[in-house]
Amino acid sequence: MASQSPLPPWLPPQLTQSPSPTLHALSTSLLPHLLSAISQIGATLRTSHHVSLVGSANSFGDDQLNVDVASENLMRAALAKCPLVVRASSEEDPEEKEVHQEASSAVSSDERFSVAFDPLDGSSIIAPNWAVGTIVGIWKGETALGKNPRDQICSVLGVHGPRTTVIVAMREADAPQGSASAEGVCFELGLGDNDKIELFKSNIKLSSPPYKTRYFAPANLRFAADSAAYASLISSFITKKYTLRYCGGLVPDLGHILTKGHGVYVNPVESANKAKLRRLYEVLPIGLVVECAGGKAVDEDGKDVLAKEVQGCDERGGIVFGNTDEVEEVVKVLMG
Amino acid sequence: MASQSPLPPWLPPQLTQSPSPTLHALSTSLLPHLLSAISQIGATLRTSHHVSLVGSANSFGDDQLNVDVASENLMRAALAKCPLVVRASSEEDPEEKEVHQEASSAVSSDERFSVAFDPLDGSSIIAPNWAVGTIVGIWKGETALGKNPRDQICSVLGVHGPRTTVIVAMREADAPQGSASAEGVCFELGLGDNDKIELFKSNIKLSSPPYKTRYFAPANLRFAADSAAYASLISSFITKKYTLRYCGGLVPDLGHILTKGHGVYVNPVESANKAKLRRLYEVLPIGLVVECAGGKAVDEDGKDVLAKEVQGCDERGGIVFGNTDEVEEVVKVLMG
Repeated sequence: MASQSPLPPWLPPQLTQSPSPTLHALSTSLLPHLLSAISQIGATLRTSHHVSLVGSANSFGDDQLNVDVASENLMRAALAKCPLVVRASSEEDPEEKEVHQEASSAVSSDERFSVAFDPLDGSSIIAPNWAVGTIVGIWKGETALGKNPRDQICSVLGVHGPRTTVIVAMREADAPQGSASAEGVCFELGLGDNDKIELFKSNIKLSSPPYKTRYFAPANLRFAADSAAYASLISSFITKKYTLRYCGGLVPDLGHILTKGHGVYVNPVESANKAKLRRLYEVLPIGLVVECAGGKAVDEDGKDVLAKEVQGCDERGGIVFGNTDEVEEVVKVLMG
Repeated sequence: MASQSPLPPWLPPQLTQSPSPTLHALSTSLLPHLLSAISQIGATLRTSHHVSLVGSANSFGDDQLNVDVASENLMRAALAKCPLVVRASSEEDPEEKEVHQEASSAVSSDERFSVAFDPLDGSSIIAPNWAVGTIVGIWKGETALGKNPRDQICSVLGVHGPRTTVIVAMREADAPQGSASAEGVCFELGLGDNDKIELFKSNIKLSSPPYKTRYFAPANLRFAADSAAYASLISSFITKKYTLRYCGGLVPDLGHILTKGHGVYVNPVESANKAKLRRLYEVLPIGLVVECAGGKAVDEDGKDVLAKEVQGCDERGGIVFGNTDEVEEVVKVLMG
């Protein structure tokens, strides 16, 4: 079906050589709908000066803002328009639900997707008008649960700052070995008015040492009061004159690292129970972007975040990500 | 002249009671031009996906971005339209220059202003699409140099994030004692499309202790590697479980403190020579906002930043600002 449509002009050139049916379906149907939703979320934020609580909490107990609800609705409407989406779940409504009936679908199994998303990540920094994000993980097939994380073939991260930008990562385990698609590609789009989409970085890769400036982003810093290892890590960053860059928004914090080519984001947790980040809506989509950009993303045990499947929508975990050597150093200090 | 125009609907009600000729001129002529420029800077940023260096440096040696140049031009164009502006200087062109001839001006001396501005503060975080700011200090009279800082009667801080907001502070030393204008007022505006201006916080005041959550923003953290006092201050914030919120943009960092009602921003310096912040374009406008919001802003010697006049456009200094009790505690640790 989708394979008859031309590939969009914003797709990086290295992905346009003999695209698989999956990549074709993704880039001609699902991604355009998602990009349009992200653009609309950006437009909604631009006029939402009265950021207020709607008086309800989502299933995780977070207070919901009116902009959270509006963003969730825009994402759901976009998914409803794309017949390739079989199931979806979100941080605001964390249960996989059918979007389009699998049985009635005319598309092949290579062109069916399930979607896991956080429509507006960074609620606590919306009121002060800091950059926030939209996170989307796209899984090949009818569900994201219990699947090999290699089936998460695409991440889409909207950055809502002074402008609206989107970081996209794609990686197909089944693509021909050595192809760009098999190795993974990370690129950045700029969204303009009237659904204008511009490719402005076609191949994002983190730098290799030696680094000109080294950045660190210490999340959950209050934990350093209870963890000698984390306190020692922070001291070592300071002593080695790393530059602090941490805004508390997962997507903008990752965006900073990708833009500068260097950085290490550390969100340690005491135990998986107390972790705040959701694996399905936050950790795994971030992990795919980091790996496609040539970096490393590990969980609270120092294992790759993409090594372990997701069994339930409410699974949580810690994350450390950034340049591979920096992440390995953090793992030594925190978990060694 | 300006006193015949009606006051704008976005002016907080407590300022509309018998406004002075100065306040009237400010709010009916100069501020509308500045708000329009800030709105246009926001619109420029929204479409500036290719944030590139223009290949020149400004007079302070900072690299200039194309968006810096565009923002400077928008500000200059706005000032040229307002006949009340006698002189202006900016961080991009730090020399006071005549905008409108003093002699030919038909306005009274109460209605003449000089303007000092930083059109786009936070260059290093523009590329990753984080929130940045525009800073404007408005001085009563024909110059800002050598004047009592009480003559800086208004600060206008544009926050360019997912939306465009503006923090405004006004304080007139000459206003009747006990009036809102004499005590100082801090309010926040939201800018929409088509020059729509909305007052959405009419009276911003920092909270008093006890605080629910305590925030700290440690600027120039690399300095803690060389300063035992700063390192000790950071350790004490961590031990006391303050929450880290520091994005590295002076205006969004202040905006966070004002929105949450709590926070302390610390930018210590080894010596005034090595300070990075400019007193005229950054430190003094920030200081007025903080004081009007009921907080405290001190320099590297622990003195109020508004106690000392500005002798030259290139004067620099450190700053510590936020809730009064927090700032006093920092002064004890850093300078005590």
